[in-house]
Amino acid sequence: MNFLLKIQYIGTAYCGWQKQDNGSSIQEEIEKAIFSATNCKVQVIGSGRTDSGVHALGQVANVHIDTKIPAQRLKYALNYYLPWDIRITESFLVDEDFHAQYHAKKKTYCYRVNTCDVENPFEKNKAYFVGRKLDLEKMRQVAVFFVGEHDFAAFRSEGSSAKTTVRTIYSLNVEENAGIVEIRISGNGFLYNMVRIIAGTLVEIGKGKNYDMELLLREGKREDTGHTAPACGLFLEKVEYGIDIEMV
Amino acid sequence: MNFLLKIQYIGTAYCGWQKQDNGSSIQEEIEKAIFSATNCKVQVIGSGRTDSGVHALGQVANVHIDTKIPAQRLKYALNYYLPWDIRITESFLVDEDFHAQYHAKKKTYCYRVNTCDVENPFEKNKAYFVGRKLDLEKMRQVAVFFVGEHDFAAFRSEGSSAKTTVRTIYSLNVEENAGIVEIRISGNGFLYNMVRIIAGTLVEIGKGKNYDMELLLREGKREDTGHTAPACGLFLEKVEYGIDIEMV
Repeated sequence: MNFLLKIQYIGTAYCGWQKQDNGSSIQEEIEKAIFSATNCKVQVIGSGRTDSGVHALGQVANVHIDTKIPAQRLKYALNYYLPWDIRITESFLVDEDFHAQYHAKKKTYCYRVNTCDVENPFEKNKAYFVGRKLDLEKMRQVAVFFVGEHDFAAFRSEGSSAKTTVRTIYSLNVEENAGIVEIRISGNGFLYNMVRIIAGTLVEIGKGKNYDMELLLREGKREDTGHTAPACGLFLEKVEYGIDIEMV
Repeated sequence: MNFLLKIQYIGTAYCGWQKQDNGSSIQEEIEKAIFSATNCKVQVIGSGRTDSGVHALGQVANVHIDTKIPAQRLKYALNYYLPWDIRITESFLVDEDFHAQYHAKKKTYCYRVNTCDVENPFEKNKAYFVGRKLDLEKMRQVAVFFVGEHDFAAFRSEGSSAKTTVRTIYSLNVEENAGIVEIRISGNGFLYNMVRIIAGTLVEIGKGKNYDMELLLREGKREDTGHTAPACGLFLEKVEYGIDIEMV
């Protein structure tokens, strides 16, 4: 049976989504919880990795488990074993061939920037503290350049193994509420650190720096773009699959 | 020189606002930070106490310090020494006779209730997790009874030393956003645990229980009202002083 899981987590305490030798990962914690609840040793397939410190409000994964626990009750069984900072918010059965990574059509990330002059304790580790106002109008004027199909080679970190650096951004919005600037970006996929480099570049633009966006998206190199904004500001908000995922 | 401080804190790690023998308090941490920054041993006067686990977005305090640090820079000096979960968001000079407790005219609290079926990790310790939907319409119908001048004797815990149990509630609103119900209440003052008992009573009403509110506010006893909702859902949002506090 193929179960779909929707997952929220605070990434601060973890080495990221993916299992690694040097620390506790979200994937590993979920696999351990599945083993505790069902006695099944399985691999959980996430829609994609998230780095250490990155959070998720709507990560999606699938996992094949042989269990008698009713699909919609599985989340409660797993949450019983999971640490408090990882929660399964939904669990249901999907088609046997559904694959959370390969079938993902659209992802939405939110990158949060704290522009207050003092760091609100409630935002600690949940936003990038820059401590000064940003020019939102200028950030919005540049944001439009990212939308569409482009070569994002200049907006990825070393270590990216992607075959092509062409991606499509569907939307990129910059909103502000009570000093927190939210950069929300939807696309068909993202290169390694792409959202954080876009966010870092937009923060520098908000501070007054200028970039030739057309040049960057045509033949830019990593060193021409802004810094990689820290992981703590990044939230994976939503993963979409083109069709509503069917409960079977 | 009399300094006004606006303070935000996550109350989870503290025994409350007030200095106590059995744990670290917000007041004590601020007094320690003042000593570190200015070498002055002083007493910080808060607008009122908050219990262990209760949070503040806009606590107000005043403190007399002899220092050459410019008033508006004092917050940065104190934040340097304070633990990350306590932040001074504003500091400025006020009249010598300004008293943060005696002169407070209006306080606004927000009580947050998590009605999602799974506890969002981001809401851990920052909302009362009830894990089921509440009847907001019914809660709102009862909320109006609290507004006005009433005897709140039935809505306070033992240990309250207040001379009178009559208080005036200016407003009580119940709003919901993404499964978080916010009970926002403004008044000229609150008895010990009053907001949490009102919140606990409203939660029970939202679950279907009935109360004779007119009777409760006329001659009710503590045992007739609802449970004391847990501290983690309570936020002191704002303290007002009738006039804009003047920077001098």
